[in-house]
Amino acid sequence: MTDPGRTAILRAARRAFALQPYKAVTLRGIAADANVSAALIVKHFGSKESLFEQVADFSEAADLLLAAPDEMLGRHAVLTLVNYRREHGLDLLVRVIFSAGSGDERALIREHFRDQVARAFAARLTGDDAELRAELITAQLLGLGAAILINKTGTTATADPETVADLYAPGIQALIH
Amino acid sequence: MTDPGRTAILRAARRAFALQPYKAVTLRGIAADANVSAALIVKHFGSKESLFEQVADFSEAADLLLAAPDEMLGRHAVLTLVNYRREHGLDLLVRVIFSAGSGDERALIREHFRDQVARAFAARLTGDDAELRAELITAQLLGLGAAILINKTGTTATADPETVADLYAPGIQALIH
Repeated sequence: MTDPGRTAILRAARRAFALQPYKAVTLRGIAADANVSAALIVKHFGSKESLFEQVADFSEAADLLLAAPDEMLGRHAVLTLVNYRREHGLDLLVRVIFSAGSGDERALIREHFRDQVARAFAARLTGDDAELRAELITAQLLGLGAAILINKTGTTATADPETVADLYAPGIQALIH
Repeated sequence: MTDPGRTAILRAARRAFALQPYKAVTLRGIAADANVSAALIVKHFGSKESLFEQVADFSEAADLLLAAPDEMLGRHAVLTLVNYRREHGLDLLVRVIFSAGSGDERALIREHFRDQVARAFAARLTGDDAELRAELITAQLLGLGAAILINKTGTTATADPETVADLYAPGIQALIH
């Protein structure tokens, strides 16, 4: 179901485009990091530009995370994030953190995150502080992805996803109204 | 109260040591990034080794975050993180995320985070899933720091810290028992 070459390319591309200025990134460097040929990258993703666009695009992540009715959105988002990480070896959101602090093309990664993820959550909320609550929902999801990333053999990374959701989803769900 | 030179050095050092292998980091590079002299770094922090040790050390962060009784620990941790960020221009925890994925000396940053922060929270918990709940508490704090980092003019970064705590702390507090 998951193509290991494609996953390795995406992982290397996310790292490269988040950590380096766009002009410093090369398909050859990504290919070396992913242990594939540059030709395979072109086959899967086309050009460097279209690979960057894929890295900077959170629309699929948002579609997956938000595919539930309001009353179960918190649990759905937690389970989706954890299960996607386990099935695909990739986090849906966390790459945006690595793009922090730079004023170059990487700002686009952060802008897309805000437009596609934070605003999509905000659009599901009503009442006071909807924008702040939406940001805090994405904060919780980013934190969950980060915790798995920094401790790949830790309890969050290895626990039953339903148990993680039992503990982590209520804090998210409390912000959804 | 906060020395701007010292803050700039720490910020540059955290970035350098989290993103590059230890042997690739130079005091000269950190000095250039922080816009100070290498001599000022030596004056404040001594050697490259002792600067790395400071970057990899979360004991002060843990002491600050955990300085509250159990029943108000969630709120205290949120307010401490947000207020420290605003007063010092530095996040207490988020650098550990940037150290992810490398097998070199940076693993020490993640190990110290686990030993000094996650275990300190776990030691305050009893009952089922204490280790998992402690990791999920640190996940929420990492996410909060990350959300501020990626959107420095966003609502989380600029809202009244008490409002942020009103919304964000209950999810943390629910894991503390």
